[in-house]
Amino acid sequence: MTDSSGYDNLRRLAAQRRSVRRFTSEPVAHELIEMILDIARLAPSAGNSQPWEFVVVEDAETRRRIARAATSLFREARKRDPSFNWSIAVQPYLLRAPVLIVVLGDRRMMAAYPSILRGNVLLRQSLANCIYGLQLAATSLGLSTAWGTLQGGRPEEEIRALLGVPDNFTIDHIVPVGYSDEQEMACAAALGPARERGPRRRPLDSVVHWGRYDVTKMRSDEAARDFIWAESVTRVVPDPDRTSGAAPPV
Amino acid sequence: MTDSSGYDNLRRLAAQRRSVRRFTSEPVAHELIEMILDIARLAPSAGNSQPWEFVVVEDAETRRRIARAATSLFREARKRDPSFNWSIAVQPYLLRAPVLIVVLGDRRMMAAYPSILRGNVLLRQSLANCIYGLQLAATSLGLSTAWGTLQGGRPEEEIRALLGVPDNFTIDHIVPVGYSDEQEMACAAALGPARERGPRRRPLDSVVHWGRYDVTKMRSDEAARDFIWAESVTRVVPDPDRTSGAAPPV
Repeated sequence: MTDSSGYDNLRRLAAQRRSVRRFTSEPVAHELIEMILDIARLAPSAGNSQPWEFVVVEDAETRRRIARAATSLFREARKRDPSFNWSIAVQPYLLRAPVLIVVLGDRRMMAAYPSILRGNVLLRQSLANCIYGLQLAATSLGLSTAWGTLQGGRPEEEIRALLGVPDNFTIDHIVPVGYSDEQEMACAAALGPARERGPRRRPLDSVVHWGRYDVTKMRSDEAARDFIWAESVTRVVPDPDRTSGAAPPV
Repeated sequence: MTDSSGYDNLRRLAAQRRSVRRFTSEPVAHELIEMILDIARLAPSAGNSQPWEFVVVEDAETRRRIARAATSLFREARKRDPSFNWSIAVQPYLLRAPVLIVVLGDRRMMAAYPSILRGNVLLRQSLANCIYGLQLAATSLGLSTAWGTLQGGRPEEEIRALLGVPDNFTIDHIVPVGYSDEQEMACAAALGPARERGPRRRPLDSVVHWGRYDVTKMRSDEAARDFIWAESVTRVVPDPDRTSGAAPPV
C-alpha cells in the first residue's frame, strides 16, 4: 500500500521548491509550460469549480509593461510600509523571467460555493492550490518560480487591458517561470535574508499538537513578533554592511 | 536537468488525490501522520510566515463533538441554500475518519505581510498551500483525505473550546485522514455526482491562453452557469432515481 518512493520524491520536490527572483534569459519550451499547467489544473478547488485560467506571456515588451504595472503598486506601498523588506518583491523582476504565467480566477464560479461561506476566500484558496501544484511541477522539471501577488486596483486594471482579460476574472497572481540565475541568487546582497530564511521551517514538533492544543508550545505575542523579524523574509532588521535592497527601475 | 520520473510521480499523485468522504475504521500510524505533516510544513507561505499549526484528533468522543459542531453550521445553511448538494458535505462524516487534522492559522503572522495587501487572504492562501501539500503527502502513503471548511461563528468557538485553541488562531480547515472505504465510496448513491465529477477537469487547451486572453475560448455567463450545474460537485440537478442526499444525524 505504502509507496515510499512516491513520498520521498514529493518530499524532495517540496523541499527543493523555493522562490527564485533572478532568472537567466534561457527560454522555456512550450511543451514544458504545458506539462506544468497540466498538473496545475489537477489541484483541488472548492466544489471542483476549477476557477483558474492561465495567460502565458513571453513577449518582452508585454512582460516589461506587466512588470511596470505591478511595480507601481509597490512604489506607493514602500512609502506606506517602510519596514517591509522590499528587496524580495517579485514584481520589479517580472521582466527578467522568460515566461510569466498570469493566473486568472473566474469569479462566476463562486456561485458553486455554499452561500454561508465567503466565496472570495474559497476562490483564492482554490487558486493557491493550483499555483502550488504549478510550482511543484516546475520544480520537477528543473524550472524555478516565484509568486507575485496583486489584489485589484490600478495595476490589475492595466494588466487586464494589456492582456484583454474579461472583467469576470481576478488577476491576483503572476508566476514567473524560468531557469534560476544561480550566481545572482547566491550573491545578490539584497537577497541575503531571503536566501537564508526561505528554506527554513519551524521544527515539526513545535507545530504539531496531539489530541488538543498543547499550551506549553504556545508562542507568546513577543515570540511571535520576534519570529517575524528573525524568520520571515519580509521583515528584516537592516544590515548596514549590505547594499540597499532598493528595487531597480523598470 | 529534466527529471521526468519526478514529474511523472507528481502528476500521478495529483491525479490520484481526491476527496474521500467515507473512511474505514482502520487507525493511522502516528509515524504516517508525522510524515504527512513534515511535507505539509514545507509549503510556500506569504513571506515564509508559516502560519500553520496542527491539532491531531483521534479520540472518538472528541471527533464526535467536532463533527456535531461543524455540522450545526450546515444544518442551518441547508435551509438558506437548498440548491446546494449537501450530500457532499464533509462535516457530518468527520466522526468516521480515524484522524482529524485541525489546521490552525496564526493571525499574528499577518504582521509579516505588506500592509497594502489583505492579510486575511494571504493567510488563507498560505494555509491552502499547506493543506494541498498535506493531501498529496497522504496520497503518496495510500491514505485519503477531504477538506472541510469553517469560517468562524459558533462552530469555530465550540471547537476552540473543545481543543483549547488560543484566540489568535483561525480554525478554518479540518482535514479528515484515513483509509478510503472503497465500497461506500463506489456505491453510496448520494455521492454519485461527486464520484463522477470529482476527477474531471476542463481540457488543458480550454484554460490556457498564449500571449493574451483568447476571447474565442471565453465562456459566456450561460456556459459558466451550465458548467456549475453539470461539472461542480456542489450544484446538482436532483435525480429522482437516487436516494436522498440527506446527511445522517451526528
